[in-house]
Amino acid sequence: MKILMVGASGTLGTAVRKELGQHHEIITAGRKGADITMDMSVPESIASMYKAVGSVDAVVCTAGQAYFGPLHELTPELNEIAIMGKLKGQINLVLLGLDHVHDRGSFTLTTGIIMDSPIIGGISSAMAGGAIKAFVQAAAIEMPRGIRINNVSPNVLKESMDTYGPYFPGFEPVSAGRAALAYRKSVEGAQTGQTYTVY
Amino acid sequence: MKILMVGASGTLGTAVRKELGQHHEIITAGRKGADITMDMSVPESIASMYKAVGSVDAVVCTAGQAYFGPLHELTPELNEIAIMGKLKGQINLVLLGLDHVHDRGSFTLTTGIIMDSPIIGGISSAMAGGAIKAFVQAAAIEMPRGIRINNVSPNVLKESMDTYGPYFPGFEPVSAGRAALAYRKSVEGAQTGQTYTVY
Ligand SMILES: NC(=O)c1ccc[n+]([C@@H]2O[C@H](COP(=O)([O-])OP(=O)(O)OC[C@H]3O[C@@H](n4cnc5c(N)ncnc54)[C@H](OP(=O)(O)O)[C@@H]3O)[C@@H](O)[C@H]2O)c1
Ligand SMILES: NC(=O)c1ccc[n+]([C@@H]2O[C@H](COP(=O)([O-])OP(=O)(O)OC[C@H]3O[C@@H](n4cnc5c(N)ncnc54)[C@H](OP(=O)(O)O)[C@@H]3O)[C@@H](O)[C@H]2O)c1
Repeated sequence: MKILMVGASGTLGTAVRKELGQHHEIITAGRKGADITMDMSVPESIASMYKAVGSVDAVVCTAGQAYFGPLHELTPELNEIAIMGKLKGQINLVLLGLDHVHDRGSFTLTTGIIMDSPIIGGISSAMAGGAIKAFVQAAAIEMPRGIRINNVSPNVLKESMDTYGPYFPGFEPVSAGRAALAYRKSVEGAQTGQTYTVY
Repeated sequence: MKILMVGASGTLGTAVRKELGQHHEIITAGRKGADITMDMSVPESIASMYKAVGSVDAVVCTAGQAYFGPLHELTPELNEIAIMGKLKGQINLVLLGLDHVHDRGSFTLTTGIIMDSPIIGGISSAMAGGAIKAFVQAAAIEMPRGIRINNVSPNVLKESMDTYGPYFPGFEPVSAGRAALAYRKSVEGAQTGQTYTVY
């Protein structure tokens, strides 16, 4: 398959790229050092990316940004980071990409455990995850031409424990490689509307 | 208790106002015909409302807007209606209202069954509901001074069947009065972080 990956250079994305790259052709997109330079928080940039790519069998997004910080510091402006960078970014990849995915192709988006099991400081990321999960379930029943859509919700990654560890007390970290398997399940499998939790 | 209600003039809000008004003082806020004129899609308008109101025991929001229409017609711009009018509007009522709610007071927001059981045309509303549900669960663990936060997710309302009925085949409508009980449970009870489903 020909797979368009947004976020392939990240901690999670590197492992997903390695897993999917064994059997598929990967085209990467991102703000720096990718095959196609784009910013998914800007709809016009998403549209240009699809114009440059043409059509693909699968779109996989492991990109996402959110402000981490306590509730009393969370302002409407800081909450906007997750709304732009994780929520709208991923949803617009789908809305603007529908005509660029082959029959029976797929979209796979990324959420995260915080939406199910909250941590101090994770409100904004949880909110974006909850939006994506509900979007995926609702969009799945309306997808044209057998196109499927799922999301993967990883636990905190082993590879991120140096940075995020203190915020996830008692959480059982998973390797990015294990999380990557869920993306393969989504891309090569036949299910739709699913949240694949890796925890 | 002194309760600030945003959306009291709506189909759902009218019933919630009636239920809560039996035992509490209600101050209404909305774009038209309310005690305080405000637009919750504009953060400055929310801030002015709180300045005018001072402090309250509970904030209840039954306001929310979303574009209803099929996936192939949903654009990033149309999706913005729910992001502004249901998702950010309700979240900003909390972020900007924290200092205006008494100790052990509460916020009660509104979602809806579509986030759990999708219908054709309801993607954008489902997305906003999923975001609010996850936000509520995550914000609950960080609320200061014993303040609580919940959301109520009603099934389609009997009172809305003339308009929405055709979109909800086989759904079992509930009366707005029955849904209103869940708001009372949230305001007068002691639970937090909950999604009260009325279905
Ligand atoms: N790390 C974890 O433990 C963990 C656990 C659960 C869920 N997640 C979720 O997984 C996602 C990725 O996390 P990560 O730790 O791998 O992040 P990361 O290492 O910071 O990588 C982020 C990736 O996204 C790309 N990106 C960011 N903003 C972008 C934008 N506006 N447009 C296009 N590309 C953009 C980055 O590339 P450029 O900077 O070049 O654009 C990079 O490839 C996030 O949604 C996160 O919440 C992570
Ligand atoms: N009706 C149903 O069957 C049903 C079922 C489940 C969930 N829900 C959810 O319940 C909520 C209310 O639904 P409804 O049917 O009662 O709607 P509605 O009859 O259209 O009432 C909407 C209310 O919200 C207020 N409002 C709308 N936009 C506002 C804004 N930007 N700022 C301030 N106030 C605003 C309106 O007052 P003004 O116009 O004066 O501002 C009105 O009081 C929605 O989130 C809906 O998704 C409804």
